[in-house]
Amino acid sequence: MSDSIFSKIIRNEIPAQRIFEDEAVIAIMDINPLVEGHVLVIPKEPAETLGELSDGAAAAVGKVLPRIARAVERVTGVSACNVLQNNGSEAGQEVMHVHFHVIPKAASGGLSMQWKPIEIAKERVAEMGRQMARLL
Amino acid sequence: MSDSIFSKIIRNEIPAQRIFEDEAVIAIMDINPLVEGHVLVIPKEPAETLGELSDGAAAAVGKVLPRIARAVERVTGVSACNVLQNNGSEAGQEVMHVHFHVIPKAASGGLSMQWKPIEIAKERVAEMGRQMARLL
Repeated sequence: MSDSIFSKIIRNEIPAQRIFEDEAVIAIMDINPLVEGHVLVIPKEPAETLGELSDGAAAAVGKVLPRIARAVERVTGVSACNVLQNNGSEAGQEVMHVHFHVIPKAASGGLSMQWKPIEIAKERVAEMGRQMARLL
Repeated sequence: MSDSIFSKIIRNEIPAQRIFEDEAVIAIMDINPLVEGHVLVIPKEPAETLGELSDGAAAAVGKVLPRIARAVERVTGVSACNVLQNNGSEAGQEVMHVHFHVIPKAASGGLSMQWKPIEIAKERVAEMGRQMARLL
């Protein structure tokens, strides 16, 4: 993968407002926030997408998400939030290094989604599920 | 927390199309999918929101996300996807038991978002970051 802005932040080559760091993960304030308190949680391991991330790095990111969510909640005073991780530019990924957004859902803003479930034949869903299960 | 549909699925009291299970996590096909291949990854630990989840359960969920994403990608043939975890009904949470959506972003559908960054004074962002850092 090419070097990204997040790799440079991890290496302290460019500044960021760090709120957390351990051996595998950093968390920073998003400089293009959707709402006050928008945070990014970033594995140090260089991987463009979640599917390329090692199990260990993914576990390390997962482990810190609850405490980051609690800190966001405490400081913003907003108890609802969305955690979002985009893979691929078609899915809205802008920096090609895995990152999780923690986005407070405030009356004044946050992540805006349209949630429109579709009809899929049960047998089709079941067949996809069986195919996935064979890979897992 | 009150018993949820996911607790009943975890206990095998109601059926679901399981695609993965280990000691801490299950993954199932979403029965109200946004698109073909929409999967839910659910910690067995009963917690309503991410902030209430233990570090261990959160690490266990994080660890399996890459392999679930790869299976979704392989079976759907769609390489982009969004991973979304909603906390609180204001944020779109419908079942009050932590769950991560893995949603392929296909030409035919997927998660539809409006991404509108806002202007926040740098000093305000920095102050929130310092407050969060003190909690972490």
